[in-house]
Amino acid sequence: MTPEEFRIAGHALVDWIADYRERLSRGEFPVQARVQPGDIVRQLPTAPPAAPESFEAMLADLERIVLPGMTHWQHPRFFGYFPAGGSLTSVLADMVSSGFSTIGLNWQASPALTEVEQVMTDWLRDLLGLPSSFSGVLQDTASAASFVALVCARERATHYGATRAGLQGGDAPLVVYTSPQSHSSVEKAALLAGFGREHIRAVPVDAEFRMDPSALAAAISADRAAGLRPAAVVATSGTTAVTAFDPIDAIAAITQPLGLWLHVDGAMGGSAMALPEYRHLWAGIEAADSIVVNPHKWLSVAFDCSLYLVRDPEHLVRVMSTNPSYLQTAVDREVRNYRDWGIPLGRRFRALKIWFALRDQGIDGVRARLREHVRWAQVLQARLTADPAWQIVAPLTLQTLCVRHEPPGLTGEALDAHTRRWAQALNDSGQAYVTPAIIAGRWAVRLSIGAEYTRETDVLALAALCQAAATAA
Amino acid sequence: MTPEEFRIAGHALVDWIADYRERLSRGEFPVQARVQPGDIVRQLPTAPPAAPESFEAMLADLERIVLPGMTHWQHPRFFGYFPAGGSLTSVLADMVSSGFSTIGLNWQASPALTEVEQVMTDWLRDLLGLPSSFSGVLQDTASAASFVALVCARERATHYGATRAGLQGGDAPLVVYTSPQSHSSVEKAALLAGFGREHIRAVPVDAEFRMDPSALAAAISADRAAGLRPAAVVATSGTTAVTAFDPIDAIAAITQPLGLWLHVDGAMGGSAMALPEYRHLWAGIEAADSIVVNPHKWLSVAFDCSLYLVRDPEHLVRVMSTNPSYLQTAVDREVRNYRDWGIPLGRRFRALKIWFALRDQGIDGVRARLREHVRWAQVLQARLTADPAWQIVAPLTLQTLCVRHEPPGLTGEALDAHTRRWAQALNDSGQAYVTPAIIAGRWAVRLSIGAEYTRETDVLALAALCQAAATAA
Repeated sequence: MTPEEFRIAGHALVDWIADYRERLSRGEFPVQARVQPGDIVRQLPTAPPAAPESFEAMLADLERIVLPGMTHWQHPRFFGYFPAGGSLTSVLADMVSSGFSTIGLNWQASPALTEVEQVMTDWLRDLLGLPSSFSGVLQDTASAASFVALVCARERATHYGATRAGLQGGDAPLVVYTSPQSHSSVEKAALLAGFGREHIRAVPVDAEFRMDPSALAAAISADRAAGLRPAAVVATSGTTAVTAFDPIDAIAAITQPLGLWLHVDGAMGGSAMALPEYRHLWAGIEAADSIVVNPHKWLSVAFDCSLYLVRDPEHLVRVMSTNPSYLQTAVDREVRNYRDWGIPLGRRFRALKIWFALRDQGIDGVRARLREHVRWAQVLQARLTADPAWQIVAPLTLQTLCVRHEPPGLTGEALDAHTRRWAQALNDSGQAYVTPAIIAGRWAVRLSIGAEYTRETDVLALAALCQAAATAA
Repeated sequence: MTPEEFRIAGHALVDWIADYRERLSRGEFPVQARVQPGDIVRQLPTAPPAAPESFEAMLADLERIVLPGMTHWQHPRFFGYFPAGGSLTSVLADMVSSGFSTIGLNWQASPALTEVEQVMTDWLRDLLGLPSSFSGVLQDTASAASFVALVCARERATHYGATRAGLQGGDAPLVVYTSPQSHSSVEKAALLAGFGREHIRAVPVDAEFRMDPSALAAAISADRAAGLRPAAVVATSGTTAVTAFDPIDAIAAITQPLGLWLHVDGAMGGSAMALPEYRHLWAGIEAADSIVVNPHKWLSVAFDCSLYLVRDPEHLVRVMSTNPSYLQTAVDREVRNYRDWGIPLGRRFRALKIWFALRDQGIDGVRARLREHVRWAQVLQARLTADPAWQIVAPLTLQTLCVRHEPPGLTGEALDAHTRRWAQALNDSGQAYVTPAIIAGRWAVRLSIGAEYTRETDVLALAALCQAAATAA
């Protein structure tokens, strides 16, 4: 495709996306795709064409094959998982990144990519109220960032054991502590890093799903007494199921004297710190060794864009760097080479998405949007609990409400079956999308507010839809 | 930004990118950015704005601040590193992915994302002449894919040790084998996975930089005799420095009887297998346990898009899966949940880039393009070697020519200084961009052909530019 052909095709595509977003904002599609496994595969040829095809043909297939196969995360009535960044300004910024088709594998290969990232990670750090002692880098996801954090913890605990025997030296095993409420990516990260499931501790939580610091201290003491080496604690600022905030200050009071790595997973909840009134929820955060916050969630930046902040970038670089001759340049000592701050060597120009999204909304606009979502969640809570059959199963902290519909006399597995039945019926109806999850041993339903086109009327409609689905189930 | 505002801004941006690509195709910019460290940072505000700014302001900053800070990988005279995919059709496909702003964290969350990926990875597998016993997934980079491969190797060798003590059980250490010519990401992957540098073997290469199978066999035997446990061999199909192809069949003859994991890094060279006449270069590939090929290199798909192929997807899923309640859906047993095929939980709709790029060019077009690049490299070799001062330091295999200018009497470090001097002078001139690298202990220069706008005339110009720079240095 030549630049001139791109000009024509690009205009057509911009119109297609604008049309899609307009239709979406009017709630035109079923939220959840109405397809069965294999439906899309069946419509695609089994081999690529020998000769070129037109862009019109591709656009037609987008409409005919792809669109019906999408679950629409920016739909006004998408209340599943978490709000995924969907701002159109960040979509444009991402197009610039692809348009350059430049790969940031060191500073020289793309100085602007590196330096805009440096400034944008500073902007975000300041926006979240964090001290300037933190330095940031953009990664794809919190899964990758938490893995990097645990590798850094491993290497600090072993005095850079990777340069010697790795974890295979027969030393006393390292142990990682987190709560049973932490995200699945934390356990995955620890397993990938080689710690082994026997050396991951699920520290009990209190009644509000927050890690219990005394239980943490006890677990660490027991492991030390048994000759193991406690290495890292992963605390969560905004757990996936119920948005609980582990008490960072109390946890840091335990980790700091012992030199344990403290990683804070604020993938979702961290964005709330753009609002000063929520910063008490991660009081003590300045003691963290590393933090991850996903602008591609509640901060409206299009996926993927995960902010990883560290207090000691030199340690990070020492753990993650490689320096083959073909990557060396004359300015390496003066610049950041972000390849040494994460797993991949090649990097997209992700910082543009943050730059554009924050300028498009302004900080005041960002804050107003977040506060609206919180208010809507409170409205939703009030609306549902007007019927005593609705239980709020965890305190409402931000914009995710966790509920259970409990008809009189229904308990145990019958109640679980009821919960899953009405949630699935609601999702299958295409009228709204919600996420069932096990909370304190019982199935409940998460209602997470913040899709790009959700308005207060959609939240009120959700209350009615839940009521109807649960009553009919 | 509303859909209507997006329509206007999007048209402006498409025109800006089309203009950029036109200017680029005419060679209007210096290839390497003419900025010093800190130049971009200085031009950016230290804080985001409180109030919204216009898209015009952002577009103006792109032109004024970002553009002068870019090194242009698609420039006609970019001969650095490797050809980075820059096809404009894949740029449009990437915009569709952002435009949906849908996150593929399981099949149900985006059926089309999953199923198009399934079909596109099959298309690519077939295009590369691989048997249908391989199943594919798209990852961001080969760095991540090779890491996943080594974790899978680790887990097979330990019978899923991650579910028990990980690498901390005090068992005999596992050992990884690769060549000193393998990419830096291979060593990094082994270190991240916890093997430790003491357990990474750099197997010697032959005169043409290919792993020596007899040296591999000897290293494995020695380690077994010493009580260590050989676990994995990483072979390279197209090494970074000189595009050498390790002999897969001879290596597989060693790994298979011993049950060692064989991972093949074809990040760059794998794309050549779209041309049947090159498939002898990885003869024996069907014995590999895992393969990585980057369509975002020579196959013209915009970064990031890395194809990871495995023979045993069940093993991959068993190693990489997590299954928290909030990710479970009713169809999980019938579908692929690609989150369990790699590190990140969230995933972009990368498969669209492959779909659009292959349809836009057609397979015949893809093949013609690759063959042109190979021919130009041969022309370049003939042109340069007309002057006996130019040495070809490694056999020309595909489209990357490795050269050294050796004026009479210049040897050793003085020769190294000469090489680095003329390469840097050429890069600093902005007229072309090349990558110096150490080859067989001496600095040389890699001339890698395949940027989007390179034509034969640019390659001829490169010969003249190298000659001028080297003569003047």
